[in-house]
Amino acid sequence: MRKDTFLKNAKSCPAQYVLALNDTLNVFTGKWKLPIIGTLLFDKKRFTEIQKNIPKITPRMLSKELKDLEINGVVKRTVYDSIPVSVEYELTDSARLLGGVLDKMLEWGLQHRKKNIGE
Amino acid sequence: MRKDTFLKNAKSCPAQYVLALNDTLNVFTGKWKLPIIGTLLFDKKRFTEIQKNIPKITPRMLSKELKDLEINGVVKRTVYDSIPVSVEYELTDSARLLGGVLDKMLEWGLQHRKKNIGE
Repeated sequence: MRKDTFLKNAKSCPAQYVLALNDTLNVFTGKWKLPIIGTLLFDKKRFTEIQKNIPKITPRMLSKELKDLEINGVVKRTVYDSIPVSVEYELTDSARLLGGVLDKMLEWGLQHRKKNIGE
Repeated sequence: MRKDTFLKNAKSCPAQYVLALNDTLNVFTGKWKLPIIGTLLFDKKRFTEIQKNIPKITPRMLSKELKDLEINGVVKRTVYDSIPVSVEYELTDSARLLGGVLDKMLEWGLQHRKKNIGE
């Protein structure tokens, strides 16, 4: 059934379908985006908190990746007018739905690994 | 609910979880793998048939990609002892389940695009 839906979409509007798949793939591409999204799935965090959660990421890389994710509508950045100013990062509503996609990918990866390497 | 499953998996066995996600991502990575899988979702095909379905791919690239997919347990290659010898490519059972993953990715990409660009 799943397959039918996919094929139907793919056939009825190929251009939009390729765009949508690429949008999703782009969110995962690169070394750091997935760990950052994972860290923010629980709740909003400050820059240094995110950094602590992701071993080996440099502040410079984290800053760049967060900016990318913000531009792509995955992360929302909020500046609080406190002293000192504090900045918090959280997932957008749209990005929270990524959990379902990750689940499906995980499920497939596990069964595929079992079939191909477990045998 | 989806999110909970994902988080549970991620927390209980992070190493296996990262491996499984990477397995799935690797199947999609690159310019040609997704079109090749899409072409084979319907039924088995011969090399030249696949080539006709994918504009701009060179025989050399197609051959390389098919070999990669075969090694990763996504594509199955069968040689028929006919004259002349004929070779057919088809998706493995595991790869057929990718339809469900693609559906989820597509769904997310479409809603994300609508929210971020449609607004």
